Amino acid sequence: MKLLLLNHRSFMAAPLGSVRRALLSTCSAVKWEGGVSMVQGASRGIGLEFVKQLLEKNEKGHVIATCRNPDGATALLDLKNEFAERLNILQLDLTIESTIEASANSIRERYGSLNLLINASGILSIPNILQPETTLSKVQKSSLLLAYEVNAVGPILVIKHMWPLLTAGGGSGTERDVAVVANLSARVGSIGDNRLGGWHSYRSSKAALNQLTKTISVEFVRKKDPVICLLLHPGTVDTDLSRPFQRNVPEGKLFTKEFSVNKLLSIINNAKSHDNGKFFAWDGQEIPW
Amino acid sequence: MKLLLLNHRSFMAAPLGSVRRALLSTCSAVKWEGGVSMVQGASRGIGLEFVKQLLEKNEKGHVIATCRNPDGATALLDLKNEFAERLNILQLDLTIESTIEASANSIRERYGSLNLLINASGILSIPNILQPETTLSKVQKSSLLLAYEVNAVGPILVIKHMWPLLTAGGGSGTERDVAVVANLSARVGSIGDNRLGGWHSYRSSKAALNQLTKTISVEFVRKKDPVICLLLHPGTVDTDLSRPFQRNVPEGKLFTKEFSVNKLLSIINNAKSHDNGKFFAWDGQEIPW
Ligand SMILES: NC(=O)c1ccc[n+]([C@@H]2O[C@H](COP(=O)([O-])OP(=O)(O)OC[C@H]3O[C@@H](n4cnc5c(N)ncnc54)[C@H](OP(=O)(O)O)[C@@H]3O)[C@@H](O)[C@H]2O)c1
Ligand SMILES: NC(=O)c1ccc[n+]([C@@H]2O[C@H](COP(=O)([O-])OP(=O)(O)OC[C@H]3O[C@@H](n4cnc5c(N)ncnc54)[C@H](OP(=O)(O)O)[C@@H]3O)[C@@H](O)[C@H]2O)c1
Repeated sequence: MKLLLLNHRSFMAAPLGSVRRALLSTCSAVKWEGGVSMVQGASRGIGLEFVKQLLEKNEKGHVIATCRNPDGATALLDLKNEFAERLNILQLDLTIESTIEASANSIRERYGSLNLLINASGILSIPNILQPETTLSKVQKSSLLLAYEVNAVGPILVIKHMWPLLTAGGGSGTERDVAVVANLSARVGSIGDNRLGGWHSYRSSKAALNQLTKTISVEFVRKKDPVICLLLHPGTVDTDLSRPFQRNVPEGKLFTKEFSVNKLLSIINNAKSHDNGKFFAWDGQEIPW
Repeated sequence: MKLLLLNHRSFMAAPLGSVRRALLSTCSAVKWEGGVSMVQGASRGIGLEFVKQLLEKNEKGHVIATCRNPDGATALLDLKNEFAERLNILQLDLTIESTIEASANSIRERYGSLNLLINASGILSIPNILQPETTLSKVQKSSLLLAYEVNAVGPILVIKHMWPLLTAGGGSGTERDVAVVANLSARVGSIGDNRLGGWHSYRSSKAALNQLTKTISVEFVRKKDPVICLLLHPGTVDTDLSRPFQRNVPEGKLFTKEFSVNKLLSIINNAKSHDNGKFFAWDGQEIPW
């Protein structure tokens, strides 16, 4: 567990390739060893890094990486060359439910269960389509609906279709007796913590994702389903999503993907039943609703 | 203020007509006396009752009541016969932004300002279209999007278009120096208070409404705008919305519209700047996010 004590700057500076892998695996041995993990939204950013670290930290585990356009997902295709049949790339567009269903069918046939589902996709800005709002007078219905569809509705439909697979995975006797669903939320989705305003579409979609995830977590408890849900804030992470806004980030507060995902995987790995339905930051602190 | 001490059963039992009006007006004299109030979603239920009580309690005040279909809004047309030019009925469908804009233009021309805006509309179930979900496996994308559009997006677009009118009304020198926006939310929209699960579309849309309202309230403070926003939970109220679910309501917990709206108007009437962005139940208690 030594790695977790390094701050993200030393981690950022760590050499890539085999040394990086050795470093990462010292803190590993995930509790669903050899199991099946799915990362939805894996073409780039945090999702892609989850795929990498899961392949590295769970040496016999299988990873399903879904993205909108597998043919164009060059980073995933590189990983496929390296990890061969341990990595399975499937096409999934959150806005097209049939692609979610098709992924569920394909996973059912090939693996029969899931131990971990990470919803890592998310949108904040898309040139000419979605602009984070700076004032109420710029709020557009189309932006509100698009952010909601991708950030809140999509992940929930993924959980809906993967639910039977998660139930099978949670009860399948790994060291951890529950399957985990981890939804990437954001601190700015917190209503209680909203001090700056703005970003209406994104904030609202993440608050809705939080509510939907909480709602689902209550059903899992009531049905004694061996599945727990977590909401995770990764910190401000150096990805395409944060790039246009990085100049306002205080010194030392912009994390590398490697650092953030390492932290989040540690939370996921150690999650217990009583964490079901909770909202955690990268450092394990709970975030108010 | 004696009326507020009556419990809702005695209130419910109070005779209608002139005696009811006398009773109501004892607790009245609103702080925006003679001002202009708008009730959006006024054809029936809680919205309609707000229109009635505002006309009764603010004897020189003007009320704009908006609804999707004015020709079919018989209860509003009856009030129009009684209150003549003090009541102005406008057509507004939350899902058609041009009707919101047209209402704003019409109000600007006729009144120039607003002292109070109540977003009272809301959907929970619509036969054959929207069914409150009892389990994740019944969650439908179309339901999530519809509830979001009507319950969260619509009210925010109304505030966006009425904003200049509210700013004018807040600074126009009534006894209260701010205009008030009151959005009808619901306790089941609280994430922290979500213990039962279910009703995914409705819960999610109300959590999103809460986040959007909070976001707007932050901007009003930052711009020193004389407008405050409140989120209100009316209790479980005997209307078309709650009717299919009333059999689970504990004895004495199903409120009349008259009782609930009387309580909510008292909260609105007494709201101060420091209440901006907060979420209150009918009894004045704050509800967690
Ligand atoms: N980065 C941060 O600072 C930060 C902070 C707080 C929270 N988060 C959250 O963390 C998560 C990951 O963010 P990130 O920084 O990794 O963002 P990113 O680098 O922009 O990646 C976003 C991912 O979402 C995918 N995606 C977008 N729309 C999709 C759709 N319709 N269907 C399927 N996938 C779709 C993208 O796929 P394509 O390649 O096909 O576009 C991409 O893989 C998001 O939920 C974000 O809100 C990030
Ligand atoms: N009743 C309760 O127990 C309860 C509890 C908690 C919260 N609330 C909230 O309180 C508010 C009022 O509820 P209620 O009980 O009075 O409901 P209601 O009796 O069902 O009335 C709903 C109102 O919303 C209007 N509406 C629906 N869709 C609309 C649209 N697209 N554009 C404009 N108006 C639209 C309806 O107009 P039409 O006549 O044209 O359909 C009607 O006037 C809602 O926000 C509700 O969520 C109610």
